[in-house]
Amino acid sequence: MTSTAPYLLTPGPLTTSRTVKEAMLRDWGSRDGAFIAMNARIRDRLVRLVGGGDTFVAVPLQGSGTFAVEAMIGTLVPADGKLLVLVNGAYGQRMLRMARTIGLDVAAIETPEDRPVEPAALDRALAADPAVTHVAVVQCETTSGILNPIEAVAAVTAAHGRALLIDGMSAFGALPLDAGRTPFQAVAASANKCLEGVPGLAFVLVRRDALDAAAGNAHSLSLDLHDQWKGFEANGQWRFTPPTHALAAFDRALEEHEAEGGVEGRGARYRENARVLIDGLRAMGFRTLLPDHLQAPIIVTVRMPADPRFVFADFYDRLRERGFVIYPGKLTVSDSFRIGCIGRLGATEMRAALDAIRATLDEMGVATGAPAGEGNQE
Amino acid sequence: MTSTAPYLLTPGPLTTSRTVKEAMLRDWGSRDGAFIAMNARIRDRLVRLVGGGDTFVAVPLQGSGTFAVEAMIGTLVPADGKLLVLVNGAYGQRMLRMARTIGLDVAAIETPEDRPVEPAALDRALAADPAVTHVAVVQCETTSGILNPIEAVAAVTAAHGRALLIDGMSAFGALPLDAGRTPFQAVAASANKCLEGVPGLAFVLVRRDALDAAAGNAHSLSLDLHDQWKGFEANGQWRFTPPTHALAAFDRALEEHEAEGGVEGRGARYRENARVLIDGLRAMGFRTLLPDHLQAPIIVTVRMPADPRFVFADFYDRLRERGFVIYPGKLTVSDSFRIGCIGRLGATEMRAALDAIRATLDEMGVATGAPAGEGNQE
Repeated sequence: MTSTAPYLLTPGPLTTSRTVKEAMLRDWGSRDGAFIAMNARIRDRLVRLVGGGDTFVAVPLQGSGTFAVEAMIGTLVPADGKLLVLVNGAYGQRMLRMARTIGLDVAAIETPEDRPVEPAALDRALAADPAVTHVAVVQCETTSGILNPIEAVAAVTAAHGRALLIDGMSAFGALPLDAGRTPFQAVAASANKCLEGVPGLAFVLVRRDALDAAAGNAHSLSLDLHDQWKGFEANGQWRFTPPTHALAAFDRALEEHEAEGGVEGRGARYRENARVLIDGLRAMGFRTLLPDHLQAPIIVTVRMPADPRFVFADFYDRLRERGFVIYPGKLTVSDSFRIGCIGRLGATEMRAALDAIRATLDEMGVATGAPAGEGNQE
Repeated sequence: MTSTAPYLLTPGPLTTSRTVKEAMLRDWGSRDGAFIAMNARIRDRLVRLVGGGDTFVAVPLQGSGTFAVEAMIGTLVPADGKLLVLVNGAYGQRMLRMARTIGLDVAAIETPEDRPVEPAALDRALAADPAVTHVAVVQCETTSGILNPIEAVAAVTAAHGRALLIDGMSAFGALPLDAGRTPFQAVAASANKCLEGVPGLAFVLVRRDALDAAAGNAHSLSLDLHDQWKGFEANGQWRFTPPTHALAAFDRALEEHEAEGGVEGRGARYRENARVLIDGLRAMGFRTLLPDHLQAPIIVTVRMPADPRFVFADFYDRLRERGFVIYPGKLTVSDSFRIGCIGRLGATEMRAALDAIRATLDEMGVATGAPAGEGNQE
């Protein structure tokens, strides 16, 4: 079974290393010293990844990345606060929905899915609405794969004296985020994206002073980031049963991340993956949704070929048979599918995926058109 | 490293089989057909475990058991409802705290930790307060290891026409709970207790009609059980990234549960474990907190010996050195520690644990007193 598992060219769950998975072949007592030490090591490493020093603390949380984003918003935005969400895809929309479910005062600035969020629009909105206390933004929107201008958003937010909450999910560990250069209050991410752990574990890196001031804010006991943090501070333990195996895998994954050269090394491999993939797809006549300067090296959105012989479900199944799982589109602006560049994959696997795509198109008799150049937006 | 992992004699995380852990040596695409089929199989099996037929549905959830209990309460108790919690330990207290955090109208009937909750008191409370719409109870309170009279509680609740929510966590899969005989609206449990999966995954079994009526109730997006269910019903997929490896382990664990004879077979092994453990401890002069008729075969609370040479932290460390992790006490009524009987352990491992305890006491020079008989309450 293990040998036949396909490569996952998706935004996650993604392909992890054999050694990361093997770290799960042991059971851990959650109140035992060895396990407590492992958690302390993980939390320290996460803070170092953003250069958080003593200013930031890492609070791991059970569940998917969405749980961590909701815990971040629900704990840090007080009942009398107001959240402004920058939306250019499904994950921005999700933060909006979350804030509404929690019952927070919330507003949004929406931008089409193939355009980055606009710092100038944020600047105007903050000037016009002094009630806004927090701004939320997605660093890389995996809806399209677009990279948002996180530094400019952070600078505008700081200039207005508001706090920035980042959904860093799909970028964290591969794209730089430095607490010393980019002012933010918190960033939420997951073990199972660019850090290449397994899913079921997420975390928030948050300014200690902000978290300290957030006692009693949360709408939920399980998602109360302040209470979760106080638990770790008291005795190094999780309040509620932790995903011990996912943590052991994450501990190993963070070691492998460091061994690869940290954010720089991991990012370089993903940029190479994206380069190989995009060049190969264009050589076959596919067109990507985004121009290169907006494309993050995380996931690539590919427009469906016009040829009616291209039926996506059939394309998907045939590629899977060849050992590669890709991802259906999530966009509203374009008929498309997506191929991920992250996880334990390199240029060799990306080339093999391209070979599989080429063979599948031949089999289906699909014409994708003439090889496309770089400027391949409509 | 794997070979030196101690046995976990705790209420969880607990020792799982090698084969359950090996099921995690593969990565799964969460929107892929094979994974969707695995989830459908798991959900069907869970419904069958309570004889839920078409009346109940299983909704798995990311996170620990507490997340599932909060999702159950937050989704099923409407804003104009009222929850009455039967409390005789930390997990009942936790439901109370959850309901208050959510902002629900809530009341409690408290009983000491070494006494079962009282159906007669519930009867009086429901007669006196027609505003109560839901009653919540813990089936086995692992604070003490006590078995609550779940059938009598269910009968009283049904007689008053109210809905029963069960925290079945530590009992589910080893102690019977039959939807045909015991009327309840929902039960929350975890993959990592008597079903012997790994932690990071929980679930709620809930009446389809009640869940259908609960749209829009939830205080949280991540913990919205109705929305989670609708996701599965729509396309068999999780709304947010699932803990794929924990699910693969759970799928395997449920197979092993069935192979052992289901609830009956699993329960028989645990009863034998508890018998061996309690008899052995009493023969050494230890006294258990609970009389046998209140003791669930899940976890045993042991009173600290009076001998001042018995220092718990030292006892714990020495036992751990010998390969057994036990659990510090959580009670307010008695100075005690706890030893679990669940997980992939049998009478052989329980006898080995007793040998280790005996050797440790000798080493520490501790006298536990004369061998104790069965009636060993104060």
